[in-house]
Amino acid sequence: MPANHAVVYEGPGKVEVKEVPYPTFEVKDGPGVNPANVGRKVPHGAIIKSVATSICGSDQHMVRGRTTAPAGLTLGHEITGEVVETGPDVEFIKTGDLVSVPFNIACGRCRNCKERKTGVCENVNPDRAGSAYGYVDMGGWVGGQAEYVLVPYADWNLLKYPDKEQAMEKILDLAMLSDIFPTGYHGCVTAGVTTGSTVYIAGAGPVGLAAATSAFLLGAAVVIVADLNKDRLNQARSFGCETIDVSQGDPADQIEQILGTPEVDCAVDAVGFEARGHGADAAKEQPATVLNTLMKVTRAGGALGIPGLYVTGDPGAEDEAAKHGSLSIQIGLGWAKSLGFTTGQCPVMKYNRQLMMAILHDRVQIAKAVNATPIPLEQAPQGYRDFDRGAARKYVLDPHGMLPKAA
Amino acid sequence: MPANHAVVYEGPGKVEVKEVPYPTFEVKDGPGVNPANVGRKVPHGAIIKSVATSICGSDQHMVRGRTTAPAGLTLGHEITGEVVETGPDVEFIKTGDLVSVPFNIACGRCRNCKERKTGVCENVNPDRAGSAYGYVDMGGWVGGQAEYVLVPYADWNLLKYPDKEQAMEKILDLAMLSDIFPTGYHGCVTAGVTTGSTVYIAGAGPVGLAAATSAFLLGAAVVIVADLNKDRLNQARSFGCETIDVSQGDPADQIEQILGTPEVDCAVDAVGFEARGHGADAAKEQPATVLNTLMKVTRAGGALGIPGLYVTGDPGAEDEAAKHGSLSIQIGLGWAKSLGFTTGQCPVMKYNRQLMMAILHDRVQIAKAVNATPIPLEQAPQGYRDFDRGAARKYVLDPHGMLPKAA
Amino acid sequence: MPANHAVVYEGPGKVEVKEVPYPTFEVKDGPGVNPANVGRKVPHGAIIKSVATSICGSDQHMVRGRTTAPAGLTLGHEITGEVVETGPDVEFIKTGDLVSVPFNIACGRCRNCKERKTGVCENVNPDRAGSAYGYVDMGGWVGGQAEYVLVPYADWNLLKYPDKEQAMEKILDLAMLSDIFPTGYHGCVTAGVTTGSTVYIAGAGPVGLAAATSAFLLGAAVVIVADLNKDRLNQARSFGCETIDVSQGDPADQIEQILGTPEVDCAVDAVGFEARGHGADAAKEQPATVLNTLMKVTRAGGALGIPGLYVTGDPGAEDEAAKHGSLSIQIGLGWAKSLGFTTGQCPVMKYNRQLMMAILHDRVQIAKAVNATPIPLEQAPQGYRDFDRGAARKYVLDPHGMLPKAA
Amino acid sequence: MPANHAVVYEGPGKVEVKEVPYPTFEVKDGPGVNPANVGRKVPHGAIIKSVATSICGSDQHMVRGRTTAPAGLTLGHEITGEVVETGPDVEFIKTGDLVSVPFNIACGRCRNCKERKTGVCENVNPDRAGSAYGYVDMGGWVGGQAEYVLVPYADWNLLKYPDKEQAMEKILDLAMLSDIFPTGYHGCVTAGVTTGSTVYIAGAGPVGLAAATSAFLLGAAVVIVADLNKDRLNQARSFGCETIDVSQGDPADQIEQILGTPEVDCAVDAVGFEARGHGADAAKEQPATVLNTLMKVTRAGGALGIPGLYVTGDPGAEDEAAKHGSLSIQIGLGWAKSLGFTTGQCPVMKYNRQLMMAILHDRVQIAKAVNATPIPLEQAPQGYRDFDRGAARKYVLDPHGMLPKAA
Repeated sequence: MPANHAVVYEGPGKVEVKEVPYPTFEVKDGPGVNPANVGRKVPHGAIIKSVATSICGSDQHMVRGRTTAPAGLTLGHEITGEVVETGPDVEFIKTGDLVSVPFNIACGRCRNCKERKTGVCENVNPDRAGSAYGYVDMGGWVGGQAEYVLVPYADWNLLKYPDKEQAMEKILDLAMLSDIFPTGYHGCVTAGVTTGSTVYIAGAGPVGLAAATSAFLLGAAVVIVADLNKDRLNQARSFGCETIDVSQGDPADQIEQILGTPEVDCAVDAVGFEARGHGADAAKEQPATVLNTLMKVTRAGGALGIPGLYVTGDPGAEDEAAKHGSLSIQIGLGWAKSLGFTTGQCPVMKYNRQLMMAILHDRVQIAKAVNATPIPLEQAPQGYRDFDRGAARKYVLDPHGMLPKAA
Repeated sequence: MPANHAVVYEGPGKVEVKEVPYPTFEVKDGPGVNPANVGRKVPHGAIIKSVATSICGSDQHMVRGRTTAPAGLTLGHEITGEVVETGPDVEFIKTGDLVSVPFNIACGRCRNCKERKTGVCENVNPDRAGSAYGYVDMGGWVGGQAEYVLVPYADWNLLKYPDKEQAMEKILDLAMLSDIFPTGYHGCVTAGVTTGSTVYIAGAGPVGLAAATSAFLLGAAVVIVADLNKDRLNQARSFGCETIDVSQGDPADQIEQILGTPEVDCAVDAVGFEARGHGADAAKEQPATVLNTLMKVTRAGGALGIPGLYVTGDPGAEDEAAKHGSLSIQIGLGWAKSLGFTTGQCPVMKYNRQLMMAILHDRVQIAKAVNATPIPLEQAPQGYRDFDRGAARKYVLDPHGMLPKAA
Repeated sequence: MPANHAVVYEGPGKVEVKEVPYPTFEVKDGPGVNPANVGRKVPHGAIIKSVATSICGSDQHMVRGRTTAPAGLTLGHEITGEVVETGPDVEFIKTGDLVSVPFNIACGRCRNCKERKTGVCENVNPDRAGSAYGYVDMGGWVGGQAEYVLVPYADWNLLKYPDKEQAMEKILDLAMLSDIFPTGYHGCVTAGVTTGSTVYIAGAGPVGLAAATSAFLLGAAVVIVADLNKDRLNQARSFGCETIDVSQGDPADQIEQILGTPEVDCAVDAVGFEARGHGADAAKEQPATVLNTLMKVTRAGGALGIPGLYVTGDPGAEDEAAKHGSLSIQIGLGWAKSLGFTTGQCPVMKYNRQLMMAILHDRVQIAKAVNATPIPLEQAPQGYRDFDRGAARKYVLDPHGMLPKAA
Repeated sequence: MPANHAVVYEGPGKVEVKEVPYPTFEVKDGPGVNPANVGRKVPHGAIIKSVATSICGSDQHMVRGRTTAPAGLTLGHEITGEVVETGPDVEFIKTGDLVSVPFNIACGRCRNCKERKTGVCENVNPDRAGSAYGYVDMGGWVGGQAEYVLVPYADWNLLKYPDKEQAMEKILDLAMLSDIFPTGYHGCVTAGVTTGSTVYIAGAGPVGLAAATSAFLLGAAVVIVADLNKDRLNQARSFGCETIDVSQGDPADQIEQILGTPEVDCAVDAVGFEARGHGADAAKEQPATVLNTLMKVTRAGGALGIPGLYVTGDPGAEDEAAKHGSLSIQIGLGWAKSLGFTTGQCPVMKYNRQLMMAILHDRVQIAKAVNATPIPLEQAPQGYRDFDRGAARKYVLDPHGMLPKAA
């Protein structure tokens, strides 16, 4: 068995690359592993050699100490790789296949999986519906910012690329299929984005940029991206988005300058609970700001897609209510406008095959849009720091030196 | 022109039956009329002789002084009646037609109307999208708890009953088509109720009972209705609902006793912002209680229909945030469960024809389910009082003595 | 291993109950087994002891000699039973579980299964998408009109009844979940049946009656069932359907007498390619009659659900085109009315859980509606004959004497 | 009143530009006018000065003598223009507005209009549901290949361009909104085209090219356009389509060369009943060829959008059945693959606002894709001839010299 190095969370602000056990077809005890999952057999699993595995904004919530993640947790839920071994129950996936791994782990046998709601699978996380690799309170499946990782229910979960060589040519784009591209797309779909829509996207981080890219792919007429970070806004402009700097005041006014009306058809929250205020409040954390702004700027009869993460417990929150996941939301405004709201993890499997086709046939340049930047696995700690400081990049770890070099 | 008596709001806790002007094909100034609407010509309107016009829970918000409704406002948005005169632009509706009037006034020409979102029509209320008869901040269209009322855009808004005589035999059922039956149905549809669903409905007032009736019509397996009011819970049980008395503690525990699991597939909020707490808090107003409970008791991947009214301004609220329509909502919980939320006025026209068919062909007994109780127009003040005290009845005003007598 | 008796097709007009091999976790060669499937390992399978296994109208196509089914084929795709053994890869289904088996065999791993299109699974039938037990050209999976049968991909395919004892009380109803109830329901759903619809159902055999039952469950206002067979029409009337005897002339005229208009909102074809003419042509086979009638009687903007079977090859057809599955269809009429058409096998898994809930909670009496009639396995040949002669019954075979006796 | 010149059908193969009456707010008797519509008042109408009015493939069916169109019929249903006068009931549309006219005339008051099915409006054509300007059996509304034309129900039917000057800059693109762009888009939407789809479009005439353009706008991965006409195939290749020359043999083989599999996800029929055969049969008219090919090349579980026209009566058809609109369709094949079919006129209003937004914000170049070619009104006869001979152009008549000159 080869050595296996991985990115490990060691406490607030601290991640390290360490050697971890090579995966086997059984869930072993370890930091963050749900006791009820310990010893679980995984004959339906596949061991993946990670070709590309990215750092996600949602990892940052853990690394900033805003969750109850234990030290020792192996991070990483955005995984693309090569199958190196399959369990005895795997029938269709084969050793050598190049595959994309949806970040949500799903069994393919429960009611929710059968209803395409793989983001809330009922059989993989003993605590609640829904699971992910390398994430706090998600059942304890070992993360994939590593050289090797175990994927359960491989026949169900894995998306095989039809032509390995062709796929390697677009590997940075395809690497976005495990999470942020479907997540941004889901945000847009649930916000009702379609041909000719005007769209407001809160947040120009990788998910926001992926949402903007998705909005164009869905035929949006105008895509407006809002953030406080000038580099990220520049990145958004690089592929045709209009932008709003929310530190400069009310987004509604800026929308009116762009569209001639202060409202859009559809809005996407690509920020979540660690939001800051707008205008003069831009320095302060105001966790309901994004939701309240979205209700204000969305036209009556419109909808909000909310892929940005809201948590049930936030030890670092500024008030008691927020510590328990309660925010002060202007529901009266939303009601008056007959808005719809869709929350939660994106069910990646619902979209990844389609988005793969769009990538393989050159209909979309997602890697360029999010400024995907490969870095060696050992530089992961620096990548975490740079990303946390607001670098307008999506860092893609390259554990086996198989990715193209960054420009 | 005949005399026209109507129910008029005269201040908190006070409604009176008074003579008001007979309608003409023009919007006249008066209490609550938006100045921008004064003088508006209505050649597309029809004058309706009210055959049945009901008291609605949302009227109570005004009468309790929980809104900015001005004294002198003619109340009433649930109207069924006979056409007595049509404006020159009316082509298909004829004098003598027996019709149902959707409570939301819509133009039939704007983008939202064309998209079937008649609850947020853009052309009838100068203040915002969406309008209704006899309601504060809804443009100033005169209410229909009256002998006669003007309906604009008659060809678009009115639902004609195909056979007048047959319709009069089911007039109390058909009277529910102007608001509460479609509203309850919309709550269920947007909550995803379908064949075999388990459903939790918060509130056993008329809208809650209409939602429960709708849930059965949509094929629900189990319908659980929750309230504090024993009479209303009895009413719910009378047509097959399970019930939960929220003063007796946590609804989740009671759901588990009924279903063997503490969660339902779908949940409907038929209460809105004047909610009280559960268990020991049942005496206190806790405006976010219903929404937070619904998130708790709905299974991951489920949805909430929210026809219950939430307002942008509530002068009578207990805290500053609530006065501006902001409530402390456990959005983190909803997000973890990937819930969807649909708010706002029901677009009545989307459903009323279908529900009429179900009534006319005896597939549903909505009048019985909500305990529709006809009373003379002059007894409206007593009806308002009894309803406010929690009578398990839906009061239907009978301005012309055309309704069957109450049993 | 116990003995295993089964119903075997022995040639046109001839079925026999014979001993057949007890199932193992491997596909064995035999009549009708696709060579590419021979030797296929089924570690994901479960062996089911059939508790109830019905004779289906589509079996009759084979037995009448209207297909290329080989002699020796074990029949039966409507299976409900108890799990007596599970393969090593089965994780959630357990020995002793009482389960419903969808007639379409699906892998739960291909694109179509992931999109809920289990009727056209790509991995179980080497010839084409879509498979079924005991059916010609469906891959060669052994039929379930037997004491024991193998179900592949058991965790995916099987619907477990939550309470075995409770389920046995409604076993005749639940037995309809493997095929005809979901099939009739799918026909209605794809025809757009919803609250208040008027519905025309061609055919009062078990699928037609199941469609009629489904239409009521979906809230239809009026359900009109058409057939030539008076007993079957009586059966339809027994639960509230209107009926049309197509031997008495044009269905449109009869619809007009019922509804006051010659058209319905939605139409379902529960007959398929062995249709006979209407009126004076009622004795002749006219395979396109039903489709053409449905287009005539459906209103502009409506839809047709077509669960009735149309085949790609019909050796017994009256003309060359029909022998190759081509029929003379009035597509111009359908086009002028902007109709939609949905064809194909019902994807049972999309509906069976919901319909189970409706049965378990007494919202529907499907066994009574289709006149489900249990008979011993050895009486299967008589059942086939009686059914072919038009008995208004759904014969349910009882291989282990576990069903209630027929009234 | 100014003079009004128009394109008039004078018999098979013959169109002329003649002076016709200037429109008034009343339907006058004339060739093809339904007697029940004669004298109908149109106070809700607007008189439009045609700025751009195109020749449509469906006009050719009449001009070729394949319909019962009477001599003297004024042609034209693709109209974009300026409002010069409004009837007394028009409230929102104003003189001077630049507007797009959906080719389907709709009342905005009937059940179908309220359900967004404006292609089958029940109130404008006394013969059947559905209507159009200048078309046989469509109620007798005068055509718009003219200097001036009357549009009834103007507030409902007309789409106003928000900025007249900006709109005139893209007037050739916007001219496609009255018919072919929404029609092609509807074909794709009903065929299930979405992100990543592979699409087969039969026909490279203007509707086929509009469908191909729509497919890309909807995010299709690969768009394959098939025709017999090399110029039209070249036109399709000019904007990224793959192409198939059906005279060269079986489309399935050619699809396999392009995609590596002989089937696509979605298929669109942009040909209709005047189809010719494939391969060696390319010279012969075979009206069911397209539908049968589409069923063959669409994958199991896919769908067909059928905007191509099929008629109820075709006096020029080669056999008796086809003369009555019946074609020999391989329904058995479609059924085996569980295909869905959507037929009929595109309800333009469902899509035109969105597509307008896409044009105004430069997301699509529809005029270029279909090779929109402005010609003076008086050259219409030549345009008809050239189009009939297969010119790879969309001819846009320019009655007032307001269009840009052709390149």
